[in-house]
Amino acid sequence: MKHKVIIDTDPGIDDTMAIFFAFLHPQIDVIGLTSVFGNVEVEKTARNALVLAEMANQNIPVCKGAAGPFLHPKPGYAKFVHGEEGFGTVAAMEPKGQLDPRHSAQFIVDMANQYPGELVIAAIGPLTNLAIALQLDPSIVDKVKQVVIMGGAATVPGNITPVAEANIWNDAHAAKMVFEASWDTVMFGLDITNNLRFNQAFLDKLTDGNAKLGKFIDETSQFYMDFYSQDTEDRACCFHDATPLAYLVAPELFDIKLGKMVVSTDELTRGQTAFCHKDKGFRPPWDSGPYSKVALGVDKAALTQLYIDTFAG
Amino acid sequence: MKHKVIIDTDPGIDDTMAIFFAFLHPQIDVIGLTSVFGNVEVEKTARNALVLAEMANQNIPVCKGAAGPFLHPKPGYAKFVHGEEGFGTVAAMEPKGQLDPRHSAQFIVDMANQYPGELVIAAIGPLTNLAIALQLDPSIVDKVKQVVIMGGAATVPGNITPVAEANIWNDAHAAKMVFEASWDTVMFGLDITNNLRFNQAFLDKLTDGNAKLGKFIDETSQFYMDFYSQDTEDRACCFHDATPLAYLVAPELFDIKLGKMVVSTDELTRGQTAFCHKDKGFRPPWDSGPYSKVALGVDKAALTQLYIDTFAG
Ligand SMILES: [Ca+2]
Ligand SMILES: [Ca+2]
Repeated sequence: MKHKVIIDTDPGIDDTMAIFFAFLHPQIDVIGLTSVFGNVEVEKTARNALVLAEMANQNIPVCKGAAGPFLHPKPGYAKFVHGEEGFGTVAAMEPKGQLDPRHSAQFIVDMANQYPGELVIAAIGPLTNLAIALQLDPSIVDKVKQVVIMGGAATVPGNITPVAEANIWNDAHAAKMVFEASWDTVMFGLDITNNLRFNQAFLDKLTDGNAKLGKFIDETSQFYMDFYSQDTEDRACCFHDATPLAYLVAPELFDIKLGKMVVSTDELTRGQTAFCHKDKGFRPPWDSGPYSKVALGVDKAALTQLYIDTFAG
Repeated sequence: MKHKVIIDTDPGIDDTMAIFFAFLHPQIDVIGLTSVFGNVEVEKTARNALVLAEMANQNIPVCKGAAGPFLHPKPGYAKFVHGEEGFGTVAAMEPKGQLDPRHSAQFIVDMANQYPGELVIAAIGPLTNLAIALQLDPSIVDKVKQVVIMGGAATVPGNITPVAEANIWNDAHAAKMVFEASWDTVMFGLDITNNLRFNQAFLDKLTDGNAKLGKFIDETSQFYMDFYSQDTEDRACCFHDATPLAYLVAPELFDIKLGKMVVSTDELTRGQTAFCHKDKGFRPPWDSGPYSKVALGVDKAALTQLYIDTFAG
């Protein structure tokens, strides 16, 4: 049985890797892409998501979603990481088709109701669309099968502040709503993704496997690798966003822990994902659920091979 | 030249190890002990500090200090770690002599003025006395040579909450004042002290070296080892507080980094020591000083030998 997946995304270079991996994997059925602000403006992430679907010949709904966070000041884009248009130095492309007219959040609600107990949401941008969806239709909390999230830093420092990872920081209130909802959440944060660095030899193998999609990842990743290699000789980059998609088809590669995830909405620690293993005996709010799962370890060699094999088809 | 040191302390079992190490090391001149609430009530930490000085034949001033934090609710003692009286299951002892009449904070102010440019404060309890001293006489910030601190968790989870270490959590406002003052602070937190576990064989070597003081550490540490060995086969314990004292005489054993230390006084993240390496490029408040030093690595074998050699005399 294939996993029915919506990818909620802000492409984005590692988003591209995640989306193509999902398209190419035989056990994943991507039923739609829902865009959100994040790496760049939502107009661009929506456009890019549609371009990616067309590039992979996927005729699926692609929606535009939230343009900014609930309460924070205007979004802080990451153009120094993902480039002005979201694809590094690769120029903007115009899609041939049209966006689905629904808001990303409405599409999530519709699919949760159409496929109760089946829908998986892979959230690889700020969590604003998911929080809106929970408000539009609170019943989806019991209908969504699982929410796999790239974001946060449970046991390691952050990347946009010393304590916060960018996706969660971009809308800490939304993230808090998502982690406090009683659905099955699994977080893939900097705890593991910072250690998953991929170099040119890896990109070459993706292209060997799939000349068109691999090559596009290679081209867009060059700017991204420059960013990730500023302080090191080791020219490589982190495809954070692909991790939760890989988990869907190969959960055995991950060390998953259960506990309480509290998202800080305070000013100083905005977006921090403070994690506490279940039954650790700490005082409130750490001593009661809803609990979340978090990945704290991964078999890098096997994950790398999974990516390469999937692109080779 | 010997280091002129005040130990600000809440004995406490690892405090005992720190204090005896300092007494026994030929390059450290402990000019007084200033007590503070923390592991147990300040009446008990003051009494215990005086008992420890007398046990080691040290005729030095011992002061009583703050009974609780500036703003938090009444102190949360750690009797499940240090025992009802602060010495594990060893019964309370009464000192022969008297406490110095000065408040701990006043004694710190007096010594900073008496030994400008020379005084080192080793703070191994909550930082309340130091914050009071900064208010009593702001000029001490330029007179104190260095403040070495056991507390905090810069890059690892906490021990009293998932994000906070107990000394800092006990009075987060005081800690914030201390780290934001323009003096030379060096923090030794759970980043290194959690990995410095010492077992019975180590305690036996301390007793071999110094039958009286080593034996007292051995006896008081049994309860403490029970606490530190709850979740592991490895019966051992962490002598957190001795670490900054060891640094004074063997700085080369430590990997020290410079950066901004921001102490959270928010409710959720109370007492978190959020650290950011200098010149990392993050937004305010991370982008400007005063900066602090923090130990992120240590040569455990050499440190262990230093402890053993110092007790052997
Ligand atoms: Ca993304
Ligand atoms: Ca202490």
